[in-house]
Amino acid sequence: MLEMTVAEIQSFLSEHFPKIDQMRLQIESLAPRELRLRMGYHEAQLRPGGTLSGPTQMALADVGVYILLLAHIGPVALAVTTNLNINFLRKPAPADLIAQINLLKLGQRLAIGEVTMFSEGEDEPVAHATVTYSIPPAR
Amino acid sequence: MLEMTVAEIQSFLSEHFPKIDQMRLQIESLAPRELRLRMGYHEAQLRPGGTLSGPTQMALADVGVYILLLAHIGPVALAVTTNLNINFLRKPAPADLIAQINLLKLGQRLAIGEVTMFSEGEDEPVAHATVTYSIPPAR
Amino acid sequence: MLEMTVAEIQSFLSEHFPKIDQMRLQIESLAPRELRLRMGYHEAQLRPGGTLSGPTQMALADVGVYILLLAHIGPVALAVTTNLNINFLRKPAPADLIAQINLLKLGQRLAIGEVTMFSEGEDEPVAHATVTYSIPPAR
Amino acid sequence: MLEMTVAEIQSFLSEHFPKIDQMRLQIESLAPRELRLRMGYHEAQLRPGGTLSGPTQMALADVGVYILLLAHIGPVALAVTTNLNINFLRKPAPADLIAQINLLKLGQRLAIGEVTMFSEGEDEPVAHATVTYSIPPAR
Repeated sequence: MLEMTVAEIQSFLSEHFPKIDQMRLQIESLAPRELRLRMGYHEAQLRPGGTLSGPTQMALADVGVYILLLAHIGPVALAVTTNLNINFLRKPAPADLIAQINLLKLGQRLAIGEVTMFSEGEDEPVAHATVTYSIPPAR
Repeated sequence: MLEMTVAEIQSFLSEHFPKIDQMRLQIESLAPRELRLRMGYHEAQLRPGGTLSGPTQMALADVGVYILLLAHIGPVALAVTTNLNINFLRKPAPADLIAQINLLKLGQRLAIGEVTMFSEGEDEPVAHATVTYSIPPAR
Repeated sequence: MLEMTVAEIQSFLSEHFPKIDQMRLQIESLAPRELRLRMGYHEAQLRPGGTLSGPTQMALADVGVYILLLAHIGPVALAVTTNLNINFLRKPAPADLIAQINLLKLGQRLAIGEVTMFSEGEDEPVAHATVTYSIPPAR
Repeated sequence: MLEMTVAEIQSFLSEHFPKIDQMRLQIESLAPRELRLRMGYHEAQLRPGGTLSGPTQMALADVGVYILLLAHIGPVALAVTTNLNINFLRKPAPADLIAQINLLKLGQRLAIGEVTMFSEGEDEPVAHATVTYSIPPAR
């Protein structure tokens, strides 16, 4: 059911999105329709009040659904985000951010993923997002 | 009606959000409920295919509504984004990004702004976002 | 540029969506990428506090973008909504609701419209929505 | 932890929202932060193609989060929806619709719920929504 291994995904991302290394991502688990992704804490992501910035959380949601989509359809660099909706729920701790992602829909033209984000060691989510990708027509 | 001048806003942002300078923002015009903001093109924002990344556009929407809110309520560093919804409409050109922002609502507890983004010199928008900020209770 | 006249749209809607007559819709103006739609006030739409219900406003946004899309691509009954995001801004008056709709994107697979709603005679919007439709492949 | 029983909620809704009876709602289970709600199938909700209309699904999401919020804060008729985002995932069957709702956040000013909807007897969700309510200040 999965078209790529974790190693293949990491190698694809490093090649096509070299700046992604700055996000300190780590795939903790990958299964059909489910991904758990960790973003290592780095103080450059902070905003006033010592909390992780909103754009940092949005970038994590966006890339998380992209990775899960890649795992299912194989290396398609040109899938593009068409919609992202995020609710910021609580102030994140200055700690690693864990994203729990599941695929709500994997169609021929659209894929939609849901992302719940937690600060490491906390029970209550800090943010929840849904992200839609458009899948280019098969050649 | 406006509580801050462009110079006061710029000085407030540099002091509280020093990393914002990397966004190369320029306030092109500011009026009650309306802001036009330019983000200078820089190749570090690119993703594969030569287009500006989604997170770059989301960050512009987020900070744009924040700036327009600041202009109306004065320097409140701790206003926080509670919701952001963005539709990506077209592939942006590798060029400056212009955000046209207007305030849909300015309440006592919530402010909502609408953002339409254009690549410099183009007529069709590249993205459209709505952003909600929660305003902390007055002390 | 438009594929249908107002009369053709009304006839198409009555035939395919007979219950739409309950919405008391009136197309006030139609031009390329722009539609102004009025929904006649009826007390059945009220919720406690004497205000128009949220679902009534959501239904108006949904059908409004559908009508504007139809006008551009012709009678395609099976275009389907894939995403709707709405911000409720103010308590609507017990009065007609006016929806000002414009098409942000008309692609081959997706169309996205933006809807700003006003109570008759008021300046400040009561709600703002964006609605995405998926367009079925041409046969 | 819950402020109202299922019977108290039903009685409150019938009194304040008499038209809600048309939705044929049934609370299947209620627990802290979790609600399972069934909407009885009725052909009046159909749209062309024999599928449940989008506004019917949006109304279910909206009322579902309202009911779960009521259960936690007690009878507050004037809590109002401030944002609703919905992704339509699959064509619903002409059958009962089941909404699984959980509370992502219950703050003093805002509550946010997440809704996953299924057609009776199906595994794959037909729609996913997030709904934000503003809670009026305590008197």
